[in-house]
Amino acid sequence: MSWFTEDWTPNIRFSVKIKQHLYSEKTKFQHMDFYDSFELGRFFTLDGIMMANEKDEFIYHEMIIHTPMSVHPDVKHVLVIGGGDGGSVRELTKYPSIQSIDMVEIDERVVIGCQSYFPVTTTGFKDPRVHFFFEDGLSYVKNSNKTYDLIIVDSTDPVGPGEGLFSKEFYDNCFRILSLDGILINQHESPYFEKESNEMKRAHKKIKSIFPIAMVYQAFIPTYPSGHWLFGFASKKYHPIQDFKTSKINQMGCLTKYYNSEIHTASFALPNYVKDQLKNI
Amino acid sequence: MSWFTEDWTPNIRFSVKIKQHLYSEKTKFQHMDFYDSFELGRFFTLDGIMMANEKDEFIYHEMIIHTPMSVHPDVKHVLVIGGGDGGSVRELTKYPSIQSIDMVEIDERVVIGCQSYFPVTTTGFKDPRVHFFFEDGLSYVKNSNKTYDLIIVDSTDPVGPGEGLFSKEFYDNCFRILSLDGILINQHESPYFEKESNEMKRAHKKIKSIFPIAMVYQAFIPTYPSGHWLFGFASKKYHPIQDFKTSKINQMGCLTKYYNSEIHTASFALPNYVKDQLKNI
Repeated sequence: MSWFTEDWTPNIRFSVKIKQHLYSEKTKFQHMDFYDSFELGRFFTLDGIMMANEKDEFIYHEMIIHTPMSVHPDVKHVLVIGGGDGGSVRELTKYPSIQSIDMVEIDERVVIGCQSYFPVTTTGFKDPRVHFFFEDGLSYVKNSNKTYDLIIVDSTDPVGPGEGLFSKEFYDNCFRILSLDGILINQHESPYFEKESNEMKRAHKKIKSIFPIAMVYQAFIPTYPSGHWLFGFASKKYHPIQDFKTSKINQMGCLTKYYNSEIHTASFALPNYVKDQLKNI
Repeated sequence: MSWFTEDWTPNIRFSVKIKQHLYSEKTKFQHMDFYDSFELGRFFTLDGIMMANEKDEFIYHEMIIHTPMSVHPDVKHVLVIGGGDGGSVRELTKYPSIQSIDMVEIDERVVIGCQSYFPVTTTGFKDPRVHFFFEDGLSYVKNSNKTYDLIIVDSTDPVGPGEGLFSKEFYDNCFRILSLDGILINQHESPYFEKESNEMKRAHKKIKSIFPIAMVYQAFIPTYPSGHWLFGFASKKYHPIQDFKTSKINQMGCLTKYYNSEIHTASFALPNYVKDQLKNI
């Protein structure tokens, strides 16, 4: 019996007992592996870091999508950067009011791999509103002249192919191609272990210097380092709590397993030690 | 270099790199070990399960104490059951209005061990309001005729010495010795992995059958299985949100690192999948 082990830090390890190593590939950008496990069902990793598993992917994907969708009153055009597994797109396609979803993923092999080995998140890919762009997210936003109501940055950690998605240049360009009431959401690392905490602070500092509203919200995601994971809510106009529409979630016509209207507000209530890290940076 | 490994389930492991194994003892009730680690500082285990570590013990102890203390308007007499490390008592002693703290711990060796090897949590033990009773919590509440405003059940999991503290008989007796507006708080396991989820449901079912108000609240505790940990709030009169006094936390005259007034309310906002587990049981 073998185990998959992820070093959450050089001194903390998280291990998952494996049923089967389903597939392994070195793509042009990264190592990609798919596993089946006893506790988490199927999961996949990029460069040895767990991206998503069948047991709790719903938490990350519901929180990254339904939070902004319940604030912005009229999202028509969405840009998803990263998110090759499709979970973010799947949640977006539940809203009939969305007209287009442009998905920019640097590594087409992740999309193809997930379609074969991790189908739980790819069910939205066949929606005719979804358009794929297999290129670097940083260069896409630099060169794009489309206008988006919502940008979702569903990136890996800021190392390797995900690095540019944490740069000031990237956030500047996101601001430029967002509509006057647009919202930018990004996966925002974690406050608990030092490495993710430093990345969280760096990202927040840059976003805060560009967007008039820059907040952070959180979710319990047990299989990410520390289980305390953050998202950034950056917005030109709408405040995530004052402009929250409790009725919005009902419009998508299906039930969520994590997100609800109390969770929406509660997820912005940060512990003091997290507030302290975000202050004076 | 050695590692301490805890099996969060038979298929999930959490490992901590150890600097030094400081002390080990087989007490009358359980195995007790103290370690020093690179990431979490000192920590101690009972029967191989991590009880508390220097890095995040503040989260558990602030949440188990300040939540009820910010609801009940006049706590004078407190009973703590378990909590041999002293963290709960330490937080209670910060309130000048509390007159007595009776601490019932089955295993005196845990108190003595923590005083030597885990002093971060034992600073309240010398407070003259604290009285120790080294006996079984279940028999203590059966035989007690004192009246308490607040009972804190700071127990291990419901196996071994902690088992009786999850029984209906125990909760019935807690109800009996609580004042007419008394509150019972207990560590309430976790919703994510199956074993803790089943224990959570069993405990909630029993408490709900006895107390008119029985709710569950949560905190991010990265070093407990899944990092998503729960507390039970059982109350004869006060509602944890409607009767929440935001000013109460200021009375203790020192800063908290996790708990604050937004966290208080937010911690009762449960994800749908947790609500579903607590419904119809």
